[in-house]
Amino acid sequence: MASMRDVAKVAGVGLGTVSRVINESSSVNEETRQKVLRVIDELGYVPNELARNMSKQKTNIIAFILPHSNHSFFSEITYLVERKLYPLGYKLMICNSGSDREKELDFIHMLRKNLVDGIIFLTNNPIDPLVDSKLPIVSFDRQFKGVPFVTSDNYTGGRIAAMKLLEKNPKKLVFIGNDAQAIHSPIQTTISQRRIGFLDYLKEHDFNQVTILEYPKGDFFIPIDYINQIITEHADADGIFAISDMLAGVVIQQLNRLGKRVPGDVSVIGYDGVKNYWNTSFEITSIRQPIDDIAEALVKMIIARIHGETCEHVILPVSFVEGNTL
Amino acid sequence: MASMRDVAKVAGVGLGTVSRVINESSSVNEETRQKVLRVIDELGYVPNELARNMSKQKTNIIAFILPHSNHSFFSEITYLVERKLYPLGYKLMICNSGSDREKELDFIHMLRKNLVDGIIFLTNNPIDPLVDSKLPIVSFDRQFKGVPFVTSDNYTGGRIAAMKLLEKNPKKLVFIGNDAQAIHSPIQTTISQRRIGFLDYLKEHDFNQVTILEYPKGDFFIPIDYINQIITEHADADGIFAISDMLAGVVIQQLNRLGKRVPGDVSVIGYDGVKNYWNTSFEITSIRQPIDDIAEALVKMIIARIHGETCEHVILPVSFVEGNTL
Repeated sequence: MASMRDVAKVAGVGLGTVSRVINESSSVNEETRQKVLRVIDELGYVPNELARNMSKQKTNIIAFILPHSNHSFFSEITYLVERKLYPLGYKLMICNSGSDREKELDFIHMLRKNLVDGIIFLTNNPIDPLVDSKLPIVSFDRQFKGVPFVTSDNYTGGRIAAMKLLEKNPKKLVFIGNDAQAIHSPIQTTISQRRIGFLDYLKEHDFNQVTILEYPKGDFFIPIDYINQIITEHADADGIFAISDMLAGVVIQQLNRLGKRVPGDVSVIGYDGVKNYWNTSFEITSIRQPIDDIAEALVKMIIARIHGETCEHVILPVSFVEGNTL
Repeated sequence: MASMRDVAKVAGVGLGTVSRVINESSSVNEETRQKVLRVIDELGYVPNELARNMSKQKTNIIAFILPHSNHSFFSEITYLVERKLYPLGYKLMICNSGSDREKELDFIHMLRKNLVDGIIFLTNNPIDPLVDSKLPIVSFDRQFKGVPFVTSDNYTGGRIAAMKLLEKNPKKLVFIGNDAQAIHSPIQTTISQRRIGFLDYLKEHDFNQVTILEYPKGDFFIPIDYINQIITEHADADGIFAISDMLAGVVIQQLNRLGKRVPGDVSVIGYDGVKNYWNTSFEITSIRQPIDDIAEALVKMIIARIHGETCEHVILPVSFVEGNTL
C-alpha cells in the first residue's frame, strides 16, 4: 500500500507539503496541490485517518436508530443529539428502522465490526436477544436487560393526563396509543407507563368509563384513516388522551370534521410538548418531555459506554403544558 | 496486528467458528461465542470490514449536510434519503450545519480523507471555494461551480404564487424570505428564484404594491418574534407569500392574533407542500415541491458521483396545492 512518503517522492515535493494538501491548508499553491492530489489518486494512497481509525478501532461515529426520523418529537431529538455530539468529536448516523428488525440487526453488526462506536436505540421491535449489554448501547424509552436507558417519567405523565381530564367531569374517556404500547404486545416499552399511570389514576378515583384503543403498528407513524375511523366509532367520548401531540392534532382534526368543538364537546390532551410551528386556532394541552435533557443524557451515556464506563438509568421529570384543548 | 487466524488459535476453535461469531450466526453456542469475543477483545483483533474499507477506500457512508434536520421539509427529505440509500448499501450521516461554515468544512475534510464516500449539500454558507467539483458532492437548492445540483422549479413556483395572489385583487402584497435569499446576499441559492419569479410575474402585470421582507439569518429557522414584528408593521398588506409552509403557519398565527381573518382579510400562500399533521382550522395554500422525486434524484446522483460518473442537473416541476388560506 502506498505511503505518504511514496506520494511525496512521486510528486517531487516534501512530506510536509503532502500533509498540508491532505489537511486542506491554504498555504500550498494550486498547481502543487493539484499535482499532489493527482499522485494520491494514481498511487491509491489512503490518507492516514482511516488507517488510524483502524488501529485504534474507533470511527467516532454513533448510530441513532429510531422508527421515523421525521416524526416531530424524534426529529427534534435527532437534531439535538447531533448538535451535542459534534463538539465532542462524534458524528451521527441515522437509521430509520420503522418495523424493520433486520435493519436494526445490521447496525448491531456494524457495532460489532467497529464500523460505528456506539448505538442509541429507540425501537419497538423484538430484538432483545441481540442487544448485547457489553456493547456500547444506550436505549431510549425501552428496557433491554443490562442496557442503560433514558426515559421520561411516563407513569407520572399518564397520571397527570388522567387528573386533568377528570377535572372536566367527563362521561367517557378514551386513550389512544399504538401497538407497541398495547396490553397484549410482547414488547413493553417504558411508554406503556403512560397508559398504566393513566389507568391507575382513574381506578384510584373510581372512574371506569374508559376505553383503550390501539392503532396497528406499521411503517406510518400516524394512520390517519384508522384514527378517523375510531374517533367516529367512539363519538360518545368527551375526553381523549392521545399518546403524542402529533396524534392529538389528527384527533382534533377529525373531531372538528364531525362537528365537535375542542374543548367544549371534547377535551383532548396530548403528549410530548414539542414545539409547534403550525397550528393557529389551538395549542395542544400536553405533557412535556424535557427533550433537551433527554438528548443530553443520551449523549453523556453513550460516550461513557464507549469509554467502557457503566451508567445508571436516567428517568427525567415531565411537566404539564397548559394549552387550550382541554 | 492480530489476524483472524490468531483469534482462532488462541480461542482453540476453527477459523469458521470465528467467522460465524463475527457474523452473528446463531449456530455458535453461547460459551464458545463468549470465548471468541473475549479473545477478540484481548488480541485487539479488528474484524476485516474496516480493513476491507481501508483497502477499497470506501466506507459506504454518505453525509447529508443541511441547516436544520428538524425543519419539517428537511426532516422529510432526510428521512426519504436515508430510506432510499439503505437498500443500495449506504448509510446516512447527518450534519446540522446551521450557519456553521467550519462544521461544513470538517465534513469536506472527511470526504477527502475517505471517511465518507460522498456528501449531499444543502447550505446557505459561503463555502464555494472549498467545494471541489472533482469530489463526489451533490448539491440541493444551491449552485456550486461544476457540482451537479437538484432543485425544484422555484422560478415557476414564485410565478404561480404571484398569479394566485393577484386573482384576489390585492391592494398590497408582501413577500417574506430570509437572508439567504436576500437581494443583497452574496449567496444566491436557487431558492432566490422564488422571489425573482414572484416579482417578475407582478411586474408583467403592472402590480407595484409589493414589499420584500427578509428575516435575519441565524441558528433558528423561524424567528417567531421577528416575524410577529414585521407582520404588525405591515398590517396593511392583504396578501402574503411566505417562503415556506412553516413560516406561513407562523404568519397566520400572528395575523389571527392581530384579529385578522385568513383568508378574508389577508390571503396567505406558503411553499413546500409538506405533510401537516398539526393544523385543524386551515390547510395552507402552497406550492408543492415533489419531495420524493427530489430525494430520489439526490440519491441517484450521489451514487453516480461516487462511481466517478458525471451527472446532469435536475430541475423538478412544482405544483399548486389548493388549501383554504388564499
